Amino acid sequence: MATAQSTRAGSMLQQQRAAAVAPGCAALRAAPRASAATVEPTATPAAAPVARRAATRVAAAATTDAPPVAGTAHSNGGGTRVMIIGGDGYCGWATALHLSARGYNVCIVDNLARRNYDLQLGLDTLTPIASAHERVRTWGEVSGQHIDLQIGDICDWEFLSQAFQSFKPDAVVHFGEQRSAPYSMIDRQHAVYTQTNNVMGTINVLYAIKEFNPDCHMVKLGTMGEYGTPNIDIEEGYITIEHNGRKDTLPYPKQGGSFYHLSKVHDSHNMHFAARAWKIAITDLNQGVVYGVRTEETVAHKALINRYDYDGIFGTALNRFVVQAAVGHPLTVYGKGGQTRGFLDIRDTVRCIQIAIDNPANKGEMRVFNQFTEQFSVNDLARIVTAEGNRLGLNVETISILNPRVEAEEHYYNAKCTKLRDLGLEPHILGEAIVDSLLEFVIEYKDRVNMELIKPAVDWRKSPTSVATMSAAVAKQ
Amino acid sequence: MATAQSTRAGSMLQQQRAAAVAPGCAALRAAPRASAATVEPTATPAAAPVARRAATRVAAAATTDAPPVAGTAHSNGGGTRVMIIGGDGYCGWATALHLSARGYNVCIVDNLARRNYDLQLGLDTLTPIASAHERVRTWGEVSGQHIDLQIGDICDWEFLSQAFQSFKPDAVVHFGEQRSAPYSMIDRQHAVYTQTNNVMGTINVLYAIKEFNPDCHMVKLGTMGEYGTPNIDIEEGYITIEHNGRKDTLPYPKQGGSFYHLSKVHDSHNMHFAARAWKIAITDLNQGVVYGVRTEETVAHKALINRYDYDGIFGTALNRFVVQAAVGHPLTVYGKGGQTRGFLDIRDTVRCIQIAIDNPANKGEMRVFNQFTEQFSVNDLARIVTAEGNRLGLNVETISILNPRVEAEEHYYNAKCTKLRDLGLEPHILGEAIVDSLLEFVIEYKDRVNMELIKPAVDWRKSPTSVATMSAAVAKQ
Repeated sequence: MATAQSTRAGSMLQQQRAAAVAPGCAALRAAPRASAATVEPTATPAAAPVARRAATRVAAAATTDAPPVAGTAHSNGGGTRVMIIGGDGYCGWATALHLSARGYNVCIVDNLARRNYDLQLGLDTLTPIASAHERVRTWGEVSGQHIDLQIGDICDWEFLSQAFQSFKPDAVVHFGEQRSAPYSMIDRQHAVYTQTNNVMGTINVLYAIKEFNPDCHMVKLGTMGEYGTPNIDIEEGYITIEHNGRKDTLPYPKQGGSFYHLSKVHDSHNMHFAARAWKIAITDLNQGVVYGVRTEETVAHKALINRYDYDGIFGTALNRFVVQAAVGHPLTVYGKGGQTRGFLDIRDTVRCIQIAIDNPANKGEMRVFNQFTEQFSVNDLARIVTAEGNRLGLNVETISILNPRVEAEEHYYNAKCTKLRDLGLEPHILGEAIVDSLLEFVIEYKDRVNMELIKPAVDWRKSPTSVATMSAAVAKQ
Repeated sequence: MATAQSTRAGSMLQQQRAAAVAPGCAALRAAPRASAATVEPTATPAAAPVARRAATRVAAAATTDAPPVAGTAHSNGGGTRVMIIGGDGYCGWATALHLSARGYNVCIVDNLARRNYDLQLGLDTLTPIASAHERVRTWGEVSGQHIDLQIGDICDWEFLSQAFQSFKPDAVVHFGEQRSAPYSMIDRQHAVYTQTNNVMGTINVLYAIKEFNPDCHMVKLGTMGEYGTPNIDIEEGYITIEHNGRKDTLPYPKQGGSFYHLSKVHDSHNMHFAARAWKIAITDLNQGVVYGVRTEETVAHKALINRYDYDGIFGTALNRFVVQAAVGHPLTVYGKGGQTRGFLDIRDTVRCIQIAIDNPANKGEMRVFNQFTEQFSVNDLARIVTAEGNRLGLNVETISILNPRVEAEEHYYNAKCTKLRDLGLEPHILGEAIVDSLLEFVIEYKDRVNMELIKPAVDWRKSPTSVATMSAAVAKQ
């Protein structure tokens, strides 16, 4: 495999090894995007590299004497076998590297659906990402750690059962779902696809655990969007209700705001049942909106770079605002902008996953953590981006456009998120530093911005029974 | 079509017409199973025949001068166009006839899946039911009312969209789902089939309404099993929660006890969203366990007879107990028998549907009614059947067998069911008369009982990833 690409990567690896000055993942710091360290000033000690390779098959390039601290983000994977379904996606890829760097034995399972959605719709990540195969190969060269890559669809039972039986995971982290609300609302076919793909894939994973490894801990990515925007505090998965003189603790009522969000509501109900019926250990992570691109590991080599989505289908409001600020387009707030959600830095996502793996749920329990660190409204985000953009000399304006979604634009929102902190999460904060970092990052890739993609592409109210062509879903407005 | 069958039916029709002595559906009383009237002494005035045909395409055979009473089970359909999805099934068939007899313009949509499940698993209804085509033809001859029959699958969008556009329903009654908890737990494939079939079929119906007739009222059959067995009172769909000094009315928390029950939980969440996003009018009927075979219409001709399921997959506890009492087998109570559920007579099912159609939900609202009339535990049912069996000279014993399900066997249960009564439902009661009627009915068909089928066939805890053959699901225990 002495391709130009792998030769170049090998050469970089040698440079990095030569530049290694610190234990652990220090080699990563010397990689091409090492300057990222300077834009992550909020990094806490928990974020310090503590990679300690376990008895994996691949020789390691760096060592650390730092003792593992059980049950925290500092802990050592100790060879724990972790299957990451959807490990080629935004959160999955960052998580795979984070765990691989810390002594977990990682297997990525992915059907590359996320890349295919871009092909279907004519979208692209701002950042030029490498192929899944090149990513894994590069990571091996950069870190000395091997990541298994199994390309296939978990809705294909024959594939999943073989992947499960060959890798024998101690934990499965399940990111492998269609994760865009607008995508699920393109039309009937995309709604049906999203719910079939997500719900049936998760049922398959539950059966795989039950059949092949009942002790395997399932860590499932849900979404804070499962709760909707109730007028009472949002608890973590369950709520104790007193009613007519009696009391019970029940699943928190769910009100998903798209067929995508609803698919995760369905997953949660199915998993709650499977945990009880089959005594499976499940952690359901109701994640907020994730921001940020760089993690310690993805900056180690350009072939490890993570995706950055800013389009109307897969982009988040914050990512869109940053791109708009960078290219001189007004920030487009949907409606009144009072829509409030939970947010977290991708560097916290990867640590939350690690914390969940290191502190597994009990068998027969579906534990729910709300995985976010701060709440912001859309207007808050616009203000933050405007302030930082103006500070950097950009002239940032904000306009309100018709909200393509059906959602409350002004509402109460107070969601709890203490359980992961209780287990050791030390959050990054969405402050000047990260916004500056994002803006600098986007400016670097400014030439790749496609202005057509920043418009809202899917109207909840219109969602037709079919669109003439796939690209029509994006181009129609 | 002068087949022997239709000639015989035509001859019967003439006899019935000649025997007609009362207005309304009186013709039906003279049909072969007219003696059924004598075993339905609890019939209230609401059950009296009040059919008044509207401007339908088919000439009617009977008339009534009774004025329609809007908004009650007495009301006149007035030609309201009702599509009954799953209209060949147990509840669907009874409903189709009930509405057709009362002046609604009925179209049955069915893919005959229920009959196919029996073929797959080697099961059969106790009662010899006619084909869907023969049923509809016979009904036309007996009543003079035409029922459209469209054979096809609502998961097939091309079929559903054509059926919708050709019939142009004012209301859709959606029974068209795989409705057995044990069937959904046979193995992974049946779990995936059940959720795909049910959830995607319902999404298709929602899109059909949105696209082709936004004013169409959707009446969807849910199940009381969506709620599970919480330790607080079960409200009708929503519960007002006071929490940390704030208050909101939210969807009642759901805890389905099988992949089947969960499929209806998913439907409810999807419909709640679609009602809000697209301003559709939806009534979700969380139905209890239905018992009884005969309705006014199904007794009119042997080709109109309804199905009676007593097997371990599709049979209910009450149906099984009645068969066991009739054939001298001990009643098989699963576990402790304290499992308590809501029940209703099929004569109330059909009236509830009519009430829902006559009193549609508001646009943008998903209204939820708990559709049952009484609560019983499994032990209650065993006691009732035992008492009646003994009174009829049968020697009825009860045994407890290992519960194949994962469920609470002793629990609090208090579910509300006032909304349908407020709209005029006058319930039948599960008393001596109906149990006697069921016992007599089963004794009549006693020779058709297959003793192998009354055993529990599916174990929730075992639910494997696949069974060797379809029939193995039933035969394995």
